[in-house]
Amino acid sequence: MATINDNYLKLPGSYLFAEIGRRVAAYKEAHPQADIIRLGIGDVTQPLPPACIEAMHKAVDELAKAETFRGYGPEQGYSFLTEAILKNNYEPYGLHFGTDEIFVSDGSKSDCGNIQEIFGLTDKVAITDPVYPVYLDTNVMAGRTGELQEDGHFEGVTYLPCTAENNFAPELPQEHVDMIYLCCPNNPTGTTLSHAELKKWVDYAKKEDAVILFDAAYAAYITEDDVPRTIYEIEGATEVAIEFRSFSKTAGFTGTRCGYTIIPKGVTGKAADGSRVDFNRLWNRRHTTKFNGTAYIVQRGAAAIYTEEGKAQVKETIAYYMENARLIREGLKAAGIEAYGGINAPYIWLKTPNNMPSWDFFDKLLTEVNIVGTPGAGFGPCGEGYFRLTAFGGRENTLRAVERIKKMKI
Amino acid sequence: MATINDNYLKLPGSYLFAEIGRRVAAYKEAHPQADIIRLGIGDVTQPLPPACIEAMHKAVDELAKAETFRGYGPEQGYSFLTEAILKNNYEPYGLHFGTDEIFVSDGSKSDCGNIQEIFGLTDKVAITDPVYPVYLDTNVMAGRTGELQEDGHFEGVTYLPCTAENNFAPELPQEHVDMIYLCCPNNPTGTTLSHAELKKWVDYAKKEDAVILFDAAYAAYITEDDVPRTIYEIEGATEVAIEFRSFSKTAGFTGTRCGYTIIPKGVTGKAADGSRVDFNRLWNRRHTTKFNGTAYIVQRGAAAIYTEEGKAQVKETIAYYMENARLIREGLKAAGIEAYGGINAPYIWLKTPNNMPSWDFFDKLLTEVNIVGTPGAGFGPCGEGYFRLTAFGGRENTLRAVERIKKMKI
Repeated sequence: MATINDNYLKLPGSYLFAEIGRRVAAYKEAHPQADIIRLGIGDVTQPLPPACIEAMHKAVDELAKAETFRGYGPEQGYSFLTEAILKNNYEPYGLHFGTDEIFVSDGSKSDCGNIQEIFGLTDKVAITDPVYPVYLDTNVMAGRTGELQEDGHFEGVTYLPCTAENNFAPELPQEHVDMIYLCCPNNPTGTTLSHAELKKWVDYAKKEDAVILFDAAYAAYITEDDVPRTIYEIEGATEVAIEFRSFSKTAGFTGTRCGYTIIPKGVTGKAADGSRVDFNRLWNRRHTTKFNGTAYIVQRGAAAIYTEEGKAQVKETIAYYMENARLIREGLKAAGIEAYGGINAPYIWLKTPNNMPSWDFFDKLLTEVNIVGTPGAGFGPCGEGYFRLTAFGGRENTLRAVERIKKMKI
Repeated sequence: MATINDNYLKLPGSYLFAEIGRRVAAYKEAHPQADIIRLGIGDVTQPLPPACIEAMHKAVDELAKAETFRGYGPEQGYSFLTEAILKNNYEPYGLHFGTDEIFVSDGSKSDCGNIQEIFGLTDKVAITDPVYPVYLDTNVMAGRTGELQEDGHFEGVTYLPCTAENNFAPELPQEHVDMIYLCCPNNPTGTTLSHAELKKWVDYAKKEDAVILFDAAYAAYITEDDVPRTIYEIEGATEVAIEFRSFSKTAGFTGTRCGYTIIPKGVTGKAADGSRVDFNRLWNRRHTTKFNGTAYIVQRGAAAIYTEEGKAQVKETIAYYMENARLIREGLKAAGIEAYGGINAPYIWLKTPNNMPSWDFFDKLLTEVNIVGTPGAGFGPCGEGYFRLTAFGGRENTLRAVERIKKMKI
């Protein structure tokens, strides 16, 4: 008889943002007049850059004529896009990757979720705590973990606590691990790792023959000099790191879907027969077998952010969101709430007043001042007592949200 | 140390179409003047329906303004699309699914490849032979098979031969199987199963507590009355079948990327504790965890094929390709080559002259008459001695290809 993948039953009821959606919908149904401001899910609100709009209109028109029609493209992405990415995001740092070391996809969530498939099932996974839930959930689904424990941790996973106490910089694990998920700038905390801190991790990975899965979806928001824009700025990283990047937050592509993954050919893992195998080759096999390329229209839109106009437009929108971040950060401070992040990332990570549990604070914000945020506990046990607000709202809503929080009884 | 997923090493060198691409590129480099006609990969050549173009322009414009901007959508697809699909593709057959039983994706290749993740790793897989390579390759990657044998079969997989001898209708397996991949209209043979033949499979699945993974990507090409347009026309199928559908061949979306999967809530599998679990629930968890929805623009384009104009335009393009199919089928016949399919599908499956091996015939066609087709052996051992041509070329190229084949020495 057909059986199910029992690992799925280890996962708690629902994906974090689905649960938030459920609670907001229930509140809205009970209070249809409520003027809800959403600073929860990290979703952008500003329109796409005009350069992307123009490029996509042009691409749509190409699909309207047989002479310029595009069917299946290369699964790994069109060279007009991969070359633009490498030239703009890596070459300025003296980093030269081949176009066969980059894989365009329909978004970083897919890549971060699927990457674990090319690793052995007995590999030990390390994740920061709190962290974007996809890394952990996909490893649970694959069977790389044991059961969920009472303390909220999955058996067999190495959690790396990131709290105000250690300034959100995880310490190297005591035990050996094989796959290390790092997210920098971090989702949800909005904090970053310096060159020196990141170098510790690259050195650890080299020493332990581990691979770093580096999610840099928010790289475009980095403002401080000492924060690497890519992990490959760190010496030796091309031997031990896979990097994920996204157009979602960079250029408003959350509903347009485009991301990419860099897998340098020097990153290898051990096969059962003791030989070393390029992860690049395995990912290429996966990508060409289970994926059929990102929509041509979308790739044209993505490439447009590397034109002169595109660059200026992207910069402007990011500055807009980062001004929101400043307003939230300072507003929280004025309200007597401790807050972190928001300097190199569009996320503000606040300490809940009086150590209130995260989901209680979620309900309090939703019901008392009609603001939707994200409970820190949803990102891992060490997120308990924290709460995430995003700077992706419109300016007016952000200002109104800050005013409401300031007036809230805490 | 980090290890690799060793199952990948069981797979032969490259994905079928990558190998074809490699050979064609090599030939083209050696013969830059060659006038190559591609009837190999099943890729469309006609432009998108004007209704889709119009809808996508409108959607692009919506993304240009904050008031109409769309960020993350529901991972399962917007209701404007799911409702249109259900209303047009299922309700006319008296089939009523909930919008929570349909999942929109970036294409059927992804869904067909990923679906196996929600099944147990010890489930026995049956596939027709020959067949679209994705079903088998993704099960090899997951570890649901043994090694590749000398006869071209993977250990532990039940192959269901489909050849001219059995009129391309697979026989029920002697042994028990849990997951049955059926593709109807079939890729690559272009043949179909009648109501009665399909009913045998549904009855088998019910009896054996198996699940049918039914790929109906070519459903829009069916012309004969006795061929079901959806497996759910068969009584009992909503308890045992998952159906995959695509806009790729229906409306020219190979480079635009949209498909969907129907998982009725009655389709269940056994958990380790003996309970029954809905596959729908597991797929929903997978879809929301590893995927972030299909691009809004693309979904708007897809929905437009269900408008009155869209329907007429789609019908016209399909008729155009099916006329190509007729020309190829009859041309082959005139050339003394046996051919199948091409009545309910845009594929023609020919018997190679003098039982020539498929890859030899590929090279012969490529080098002698500059036509690219697909070697039958690339779809499985029973495809050896067969060859696939597609009707997706332009009319002129199709006519020229037929003339070239007629003049070829066989």
